[in-house]
Amino acid sequence: MNTPLRLGIAGLGTVGTGVVRIIRQKANLLAARAGRPVVITAVSARTRDKDRGVTLSDYAWEDDPVALAKRADVDVFVELMGGSDGPAKAATEAAIAAGKDIVTANKAMLALHGQALAVAAEAAGRVIRFEAAVAGGIPVIKALTEGLAGNDITRVMGVMNGTCNYILTRMQSAGLPYAQVFDEAAKLGYLEADPTLDVGGIDAGHKLALLASIAFGCQVNFDGVTLEGIEKITIEDIRHAADMGYRIKLLGVAQMTGRGLEQRMSPCLVPDTSPLGQLEGGTNMVVLEGDNVEQIVLRGPGAGMGPTASAVMGDVMDIARGARLPTFGQPAASLAQCQTATSATPAPYYMRMSLIDKPGALAKVATLLGEAGISIDRMRQYRHDATTAPVLIVTHKTTRDALDTALTGISRLDVLHGEPVALRIETV
Amino acid sequence: MNTPLRLGIAGLGTVGTGVVRIIRQKANLLAARAGRPVVITAVSARTRDKDRGVTLSDYAWEDDPVALAKRADVDVFVELMGGSDGPAKAATEAAIAAGKDIVTANKAMLALHGQALAVAAEAAGRVIRFEAAVAGGIPVIKALTEGLAGNDITRVMGVMNGTCNYILTRMQSAGLPYAQVFDEAAKLGYLEADPTLDVGGIDAGHKLALLASIAFGCQVNFDGVTLEGIEKITIEDIRHAADMGYRIKLLGVAQMTGRGLEQRMSPCLVPDTSPLGQLEGGTNMVVLEGDNVEQIVLRGPGAGMGPTASAVMGDVMDIARGARLPTFGQPAASLAQCQTATSATPAPYYMRMSLIDKPGALAKVATLLGEAGISIDRMRQYRHDATTAPVLIVTHKTTRDALDTALTGISRLDVLHGEPVALRIETV
Repeated sequence: MNTPLRLGIAGLGTVGTGVVRIIRQKANLLAARAGRPVVITAVSARTRDKDRGVTLSDYAWEDDPVALAKRADVDVFVELMGGSDGPAKAATEAAIAAGKDIVTANKAMLALHGQALAVAAEAAGRVIRFEAAVAGGIPVIKALTEGLAGNDITRVMGVMNGTCNYILTRMQSAGLPYAQVFDEAAKLGYLEADPTLDVGGIDAGHKLALLASIAFGCQVNFDGVTLEGIEKITIEDIRHAADMGYRIKLLGVAQMTGRGLEQRMSPCLVPDTSPLGQLEGGTNMVVLEGDNVEQIVLRGPGAGMGPTASAVMGDVMDIARGARLPTFGQPAASLAQCQTATSATPAPYYMRMSLIDKPGALAKVATLLGEAGISIDRMRQYRHDATTAPVLIVTHKTTRDALDTALTGISRLDVLHGEPVALRIETV
Repeated sequence: MNTPLRLGIAGLGTVGTGVVRIIRQKANLLAARAGRPVVITAVSARTRDKDRGVTLSDYAWEDDPVALAKRADVDVFVELMGGSDGPAKAATEAAIAAGKDIVTANKAMLALHGQALAVAAEAAGRVIRFEAAVAGGIPVIKALTEGLAGNDITRVMGVMNGTCNYILTRMQSAGLPYAQVFDEAAKLGYLEADPTLDVGGIDAGHKLALLASIAFGCQVNFDGVTLEGIEKITIEDIRHAADMGYRIKLLGVAQMTGRGLEQRMSPCLVPDTSPLGQLEGGTNMVVLEGDNVEQIVLRGPGAGMGPTASAVMGDVMDIARGARLPTFGQPAASLAQCQTATSATPAPYYMRMSLIDKPGALAKVATLLGEAGISIDRMRQYRHDATTAPVLIVTHKTTRDALDTALTGISRLDVLHGEPVALRIETV
């Protein structure tokens, strides 16, 4: 096995450049570990004349990633362009058709087209690896697909968008409102060009859908993820949560229920003493639960050149060492089209609403909650602020359906100022 | 690839029984994930007539594990007997000679004989997998060997003996002395037959030596681990550490230094806000640091039937899927005999000593520290307890050598009551 493994790298942004750097700096170490040299034969990017701080003149250049994908001197097509469709998808499909293995960091492409790509790759006897697509440098795809292969996975949870966790923990530590910290994050370059991908939970939702597919043997189904962003979270919510011993996190949860696969990406309250509650700043954390292993917690950097390139290299090294397994842990053709279950797992909820100061307003709210079958664990009405009174409610276990029924009724009462907020309290 | 993978399991204690149970209960799931059935053909244990709660009548029985290891209908020899030498080693050697792959949970055997066994296995084209030998259910061998294969590892740390962490956290939470909590742990069955394996750091030291070999490309060298147990830790140490914002953990640290490989397993102070500091009870944690990935933290159950069997099954499933790599991540024949460096990395230290109440005693201690080149960050002398005065010292960064020189001098002064304690403060 001394034949070199030859990579074609499409996309030379931060991650692509990081991968080139590792392969140039660690040729001997990689060869010792893989049992064969790992080399780059060709690269491709949008702009050729740009100083990326690494030498590229040793590699063939292709303007067109599809042409790169088809090259006879490429064994593995490393897709680091991004984008769910367009060139990334076209080049990945071309690479599979040309008999190449794929390593990608593209969560959007796999969350939307992963099933079709996996079927095509497996029909061609090729693998698609995507460690870098989920939780940056944390080897979570590997832990779930391989390390925990002897478990029925019972639940997967994760804080997988570092920007959202930065915003939420910075709001708490500095006592600043959402809008101000959002602007800070934008200035620091932490936000995607379309910030909804971050704060709307879409990016993290893509990652959750990929984990859920592996965990539960379902075809990846991003449309089945119930998405809720962090835009409505106020500094008051964070303070109230802290008073009660909780932290607010944009938390992804996937679990199989009697009604189907439940996938949620939403701000949740978690105990401040739990590993998830203690996670500060841009760090990511994934919690994997299985019937045998109980609970494994993985923590690490969710982004950045080094960590993401490290994840890409883990996949490359596996291919170099001859490890081959189906994209989602079992043959794509055998993955089930799982029913989507929303609101299947009951939980306590934290609610905040601003009541207009009218006699009987609070009683009406309480009545509607009771009629929806929701019992109240704790309720607090704060001192009046001019004409409105903030009310906090912590419910006993209920379903999101029951809660939405109650909230619809409450909205009709005409006693609320603004939108109510309802956040799940997750047992972690 | 529909040929079944056939296991011969030697050792039917907690872990062996757990593996049998998983293979019986999850035959379909395992086959879907592996692409082939995973079956047991033969088993072996010391006592045949014993109700283990699982059906064994479907499998051939061997009284002798060596005979099991040689059976023609066994592809993988699963060694779950334990013991560094004796039957476990004899049977493992026989299995390698007979062309079988090995899966083992035996940290002692690999820490002492891993190099020779790996050389033999690799010469025969066989693999030895040992995920279950380190940190129970946490897939840390996989994360280090495969997930982080694109990194120069800079440091590996871990709390890898659940019993010690139970004792230390229970002392703190209940305010109980070491001896009492030790007895509690013994009654709960948490201690090995020879408790020195736990509280002396030997068991955790075995695990550290295995991780260090993979991380730094060195031949496994348990003799190179500087071992210190937790027996000397008092409730006062725990309280003083807490006052200063630290927790005491039996912490393993391995790092490559200019003077060679440093491997330490000793009680250390770590910040109470760090993931290691927050680790309570019997849970394990491993911290992996690499030049690209920065820092990955893995947390999970370090023992127990389910978690350990889960780790064994991860290895079995890898073999079933055709993943093959050298025992320690690169060919054993290419592993270096690394120099052992003790006391290479400086650190601040916490010291506690009990001074006999004589004029000038404290000054003499301070002088000797100064003469050894150790500068003092903080010093506190407590109220006298009859004729002795407890003194706490936190030093600036120094080496263990300098500290030992000072301590030797201090012992000669004849001003100490009992033995002084010196614990490293580790940056995590």
